[in-house]
Amino acid sequence: MTGFGYELLETDSAARRGRLTTAHGTVETPVFMPVGTAATVKGMTSEVVTRTGAQIVLANTYHLMLRPGAETVDRLGGLHAFMDWPGPILTDSGGFQVMSLTDLRKLDDTGVEFRSHIDGARFLLTPERSVEIQHLLDSTITMVLDECTPHGLGETEAADSMHLSMRWADRCRSAFSERSGYGLFGIVQGSVFPNLRLESAAALTDIGFDGYALGGLAVGEGQTEMFSVLDVTVPALPQDRPRYLMGVGTPDDIVGAVQRGIDMFDCVLPTRSGRTGQAFTRRGTVNIRNARHTEDPRPLDPSSSYPGVGDVSRGYLHHLFKAKEMLGPILLTMHNLHYYQELMAGIRAAIEAGSLDQFAADFRAQQAEGDIEPL
Amino acid sequence: MTGFGYELLETDSAARRGRLTTAHGTVETPVFMPVGTAATVKGMTSEVVTRTGAQIVLANTYHLMLRPGAETVDRLGGLHAFMDWPGPILTDSGGFQVMSLTDLRKLDDTGVEFRSHIDGARFLLTPERSVEIQHLLDSTITMVLDECTPHGLGETEAADSMHLSMRWADRCRSAFSERSGYGLFGIVQGSVFPNLRLESAAALTDIGFDGYALGGLAVGEGQTEMFSVLDVTVPALPQDRPRYLMGVGTPDDIVGAVQRGIDMFDCVLPTRSGRTGQAFTRRGTVNIRNARHTEDPRPLDPSSSYPGVGDVSRGYLHHLFKAKEMLGPILLTMHNLHYYQELMAGIRAAIEAGSLDQFAADFRAQQAEGDIEPL
Repeated sequence: MTGFGYELLETDSAARRGRLTTAHGTVETPVFMPVGTAATVKGMTSEVVTRTGAQIVLANTYHLMLRPGAETVDRLGGLHAFMDWPGPILTDSGGFQVMSLTDLRKLDDTGVEFRSHIDGARFLLTPERSVEIQHLLDSTITMVLDECTPHGLGETEAADSMHLSMRWADRCRSAFSERSGYGLFGIVQGSVFPNLRLESAAALTDIGFDGYALGGLAVGEGQTEMFSVLDVTVPALPQDRPRYLMGVGTPDDIVGAVQRGIDMFDCVLPTRSGRTGQAFTRRGTVNIRNARHTEDPRPLDPSSSYPGVGDVSRGYLHHLFKAKEMLGPILLTMHNLHYYQELMAGIRAAIEAGSLDQFAADFRAQQAEGDIEPL
Repeated sequence: MTGFGYELLETDSAARRGRLTTAHGTVETPVFMPVGTAATVKGMTSEVVTRTGAQIVLANTYHLMLRPGAETVDRLGGLHAFMDWPGPILTDSGGFQVMSLTDLRKLDDTGVEFRSHIDGARFLLTPERSVEIQHLLDSTITMVLDECTPHGLGETEAADSMHLSMRWADRCRSAFSERSGYGLFGIVQGSVFPNLRLESAAALTDIGFDGYALGGLAVGEGQTEMFSVLDVTVPALPQDRPRYLMGVGTPDDIVGAVQRGIDMFDCVLPTRSGRTGQAFTRRGTVNIRNARHTEDPRPLDPSSSYPGVGDVSRGYLHHLFKAKEMLGPILLTMHNLHYYQELMAGIRAAIEAGSLDQFAADFRAQQAEGDIEPL
């Protein structure tokens, strides 16, 4: 693919230190992509997102196709201009939200028909339309339309669903217009069945994509089962393409998945948790709404201070959440995004130094310590 | 008053270019103070507030005494540490919100008894307690407790109310502990009656304050009547002390009040309007929720671009408000605060150049032009 590529820089056991080259800049991997659902990482200016260390953001096709509409984004110059984010943008296919947010729908080989959760308007999302929308959005990385197999399906249903996704993947490949520095990723499905995952990985590799994602995980199967699927599937993916674990996850999920060869992540956890008062720190999570913080003059994480978040106390953050002040969610989201990006930087440095296992052990020990003692 | 002072640098007719020296830094006047009600300018980090050009912020005693409580703020190091704003802070006395936000109350010479609008808890706010609370908050500029006379009162009631405020002002002066670089401001009342305003100004000057505010204005009397009160009252205030017009106002109010000798302003307009989708620009106000902006690629104000607000289109801002995304209110608040501070900087430069009347005429002509034409 001209202008779009993945370079493997270092390995440390299964973990990979790489670099993605795109039309909108390079991305050092392993990488975490903040979620900018409706063309905004909630509560963050693009300048703040950049300062947290983010190199690439994700936006949701489903939300944008409904509002303001892909054609409107196109007329306003595409997502990069629209959301003032000149860097790379990955968009999902819209399928996941169609299946999780809308009730009325008909899914068959053609695609999926649904009604908008905003105004009930009827839409048909086909593989071709999903790719077209992502083109209109000017997405750097387009994802194929797939059916995100729910957890707990039997093997026959999981196989049928995966086969549908593979037919759609093939149609997406045909519909995608090549542009220098833009990429299209396939999505491995097959639920928790090793043979189905391997069949899916082989089918996608045959079609040929610029990257390979793992879908249908983090849907309730638990970390152990998720890691088992990675152990089976990742070795079957091409070495020279990035691997993306969709919708994952906690800091601990990410460290474990990197150890199993994953390069890319996205998750709403740092942003959504930030809005509800949960902070991620080196010593685990902190619920800032807890009354123990009312008069605590210490910062969230005494061992780190992030630019722009400010030198504020737990007591102040607690006050902001009690008073329902916007600044509470803003500061905690900034903090969490910084924390996630700092974790990824630590992971990248550890892979370069060949010490990821030690990094992971230290990370887990520190998380297990739990939050600092109340005063 | 040691360490707290006002220096008159230049005059241009009645307008004054001055400098306030305080324990927490100097303030170039005329100055606009953003409102940080509950120890936060809504949606803005302190870093952003600084970048808009703000030199001093206002916080509300009423809100802070209820939540988190003045003693809690004190134990967390005072407002400057609490809200991460090392610069000067002016606090109001709490009286205005007690009288506008609470229902159950008893007002007599002692003070005002009320129930919290949050949980119904009973409080008594006296002149002495108001000063004590502002001391606990570590307020740079303490305001005396007064009764904000409502618009439309007869002269007798207005006189009674003003006399009560003058007795309270005297008690506040006695209760205030002098600290180097901290100041106490008196508040002129007397509704729209020239003789009462002059009597109030004389009473306060006799007591002696570090600055003089005009209260009970912008309460429905209209700009013409407000300016008439300024024309009568301002000349009666000491030349060597700052004059503060409380709760004012629109850009046009501010320009006119500066021309009448006012040095300090505060108002929720730029922040509150920003949250509801109204932007202030050189060419008047813009309601970004209006459908005409849906696909408009132009910035809010083509003639200005503010750091941190980002290079975003009206179409994007419109989308953020339609999608109820936090970033909409954030960006518009930032924009409006920048606009207000840029206006004040323009006013200060014009006074220095002796050209304030020309500045005011240009300002009004540009405002009257109205927003740019739709595409």
